[in-house]
Amino acid sequence: MTKKPMIVAGVMSGTSADGINVALVTMNDSRQPRETKTRSRVNFQLIGHAEFAYPKKVRAAVLAAMNATRASVADLSRLNFLLGELYADAILATQSQLRIKADLIGCHGQTLYHQGETARFLGRKLTTTWQTGEPAIVAARVGAPVVSDFRPADLAAGGKGAPLVPFLDYLLFRDAHMGRIAQNIGGIANLTAIPAHASASQVIAFDTGPGNMVIDAVTDRLFRQPFDRGGRIAASGKVQANVIRKMLQREFFRKAPPKTAGREEFGREFVREFLRACGRCPKQYIVATATALTAKSIADAIQRYTTQDPTRKLRFHEMILSGGGAKNSTLVSMLTSELASLGLRLRFSDEFGLPSAAKEAVAFAVLAHETWHRRASNLPSATGATRPAILGKISYP
Amino acid sequence: MTKKPMIVAGVMSGTSADGINVALVTMNDSRQPRETKTRSRVNFQLIGHAEFAYPKKVRAAVLAAMNATRASVADLSRLNFLLGELYADAILATQSQLRIKADLIGCHGQTLYHQGETARFLGRKLTTTWQTGEPAIVAARVGAPVVSDFRPADLAAGGKGAPLVPFLDYLLFRDAHMGRIAQNIGGIANLTAIPAHASASQVIAFDTGPGNMVIDAVTDRLFRQPFDRGGRIAASGKVQANVIRKMLQREFFRKAPPKTAGREEFGREFVREFLRACGRCPKQYIVATATALTAKSIADAIQRYTTQDPTRKLRFHEMILSGGGAKNSTLVSMLTSELASLGLRLRFSDEFGLPSAAKEAVAFAVLAHETWHRRASNLPSATGATRPAILGKISYP
Repeated sequence: MTKKPMIVAGVMSGTSADGINVALVTMNDSRQPRETKTRSRVNFQLIGHAEFAYPKKVRAAVLAAMNATRASVADLSRLNFLLGELYADAILATQSQLRIKADLIGCHGQTLYHQGETARFLGRKLTTTWQTGEPAIVAARVGAPVVSDFRPADLAAGGKGAPLVPFLDYLLFRDAHMGRIAQNIGGIANLTAIPAHASASQVIAFDTGPGNMVIDAVTDRLFRQPFDRGGRIAASGKVQANVIRKMLQREFFRKAPPKTAGREEFGREFVREFLRACGRCPKQYIVATATALTAKSIADAIQRYTTQDPTRKLRFHEMILSGGGAKNSTLVSMLTSELASLGLRLRFSDEFGLPSAAKEAVAFAVLAHETWHRRASNLPSATGATRPAILGKISYP
Repeated sequence: MTKKPMIVAGVMSGTSADGINVALVTMNDSRQPRETKTRSRVNFQLIGHAEFAYPKKVRAAVLAAMNATRASVADLSRLNFLLGELYADAILATQSQLRIKADLIGCHGQTLYHQGETARFLGRKLTTTWQTGEPAIVAARVGAPVVSDFRPADLAAGGKGAPLVPFLDYLLFRDAHMGRIAQNIGGIANLTAIPAHASASQVIAFDTGPGNMVIDAVTDRLFRQPFDRGGRIAASGKVQANVIRKMLQREFFRKAPPKTAGREEFGREFVREFLRACGRCPKQYIVATATALTAKSIADAIQRYTTQDPTRKLRFHEMILSGGGAKNSTLVSMLTSELASLGLRLRFSDEFGLPSAAKEAVAFAVLAHETWHRRASNLPSATGATRPAILGKISYP
């Protein structure tokens, strides 16, 4: 049964607290997607997207609120309504820019706190998460229903409340005949593995390790440049295989998925150890080795994952790359050769009509649409939930 | 059209942070209620109710969080999920006690902050409110959809986000031929005026002034008793009419409705002034005068309100009394004679099958049911909103 298409706005604010990303999407709701062609299985289309920076004072207030130990409850309450106003502004501006009005809004909100692991509090064991940005304000000002606050329902189902974006990867990239891995390389690198003809419960997602953050850190330290543009420095260096072997011994890489890496996992301490392992080799060798570490840890994770359960016969044919790492040619070429030995071909997410910058906003449009139709949209195999859950809360205009 | 009846649980935690009140209600949804008999117009029935005290540590944490200036964001986030667990516990316990399962839940949450008046914050004028207690946890554990967070939508519609309970008074007490005033006498006294055959937009609600709090304060001070049980002390004293006249000159009493009184309005400072006005008269005269002040200020408010707009021909026939003040016989008899001069008869809310203790919890069951059917349930004439609004957010189990 195919329903009338809906225009859905997805709204995302990331933990960097830069501002607001809005994507407008056409959702075609076909409960039994046709399986013949790649395109027909993708039941949504990006209309356009836009980014809005927070005003300086607001960004400062958001950053101050994250994990704050001495916050004003009155100001936190005001910040919630203020962000609602800014989300409404951003959606209204995007709508007028694209000359289209949303029928439904999916608004992630700004995360102030997230604790996916159980801990004791006043005598109870619990997990918790907090996304702020009042949806009642958004619904009233934009004049459309809003689905907000997606993470608590997954926590309530025993999950870690993250990651939620793999559901989008699943919709976008699942294929009847091909196993695919959606690989994002941001500061941290994470993948969504979608076996051929997978049901939602067969999709797995986890962090593979460092993405750009170790490369950036050593480039900044050794070359006083914020990142290795295009991978040029790495291209001129020699990879130190012994260093890679040593670093891959660390506990994170040996843990079975699903697993998540905080930024602290590959931060200052990791970089210090990495540099110590590199010893006195030339500077560009060190950047090359950091780049190879990302490529090798991704390939390694895939190999461990696919061989961990031989009875399932997990076979993957394509990796679809997104994120800033896709612009690093040296990293891409290293990854291409690593993947070749695993029988995987490398492609880029832009080929599938979804620019990296819009991806998370699109994800929350898609998740909102699922909730609107009372369908679960967490992937228990990715979040660790014990069951599927309908995510979010609905506010009417 | 009459729909299938729903069992709805209403859950309330008041600002005193004592704990959780749960009411289970059968809702019969008839869009056009029959207007012939009082009973048939009341389209819900209380099945039962129960109260649960917060554990001491939780109460302390809630009280500490209210208006806190140095709160931990992590702990506020944990408190939200913890209260969700306690709400779920309370509903499950009430269900098993009454041997019935709710189809829907309306959960008010615990108010941590409320600012119904516009104020500037980081460059924007806004109002705000904050009710905590995670509904995703409640929905998951009880296995029914939850409507929560009722106040923001009224704020988004330009209202003060309060009072919301008058909607229940309207459903309970509206009559085709009789104008009624639902009068609650708690610490503060507030009324809901429902003209005969009123539409929702004709209902007005406001605080009339002190309820028991001035009586309690002077009784405590002069007799070292927490309250004047049954109004016995007042019964033995003489009312000082000049004191009443003087106190009723204060700005609050002269302001036109809708108006709200904070507890600070009739607190220490007011009592000091009241005692000064009483001068050296006998102690029991002072308690009698404080009791008469409540009765007179209620009658006065009704008279001012009904005469303020003579063209509307507001006429009221009955006052329906609820709250602790209904147990003070002296107050009741004073009120009876004040009302007689206005042509009003006094009745008690218990006659209508709704115990005072269950009233707020029932109200949020009723409001949840309206939201579930996508109907507005704020009363703009009571909250000051510019339009009706569908209140709350829906979380699915």
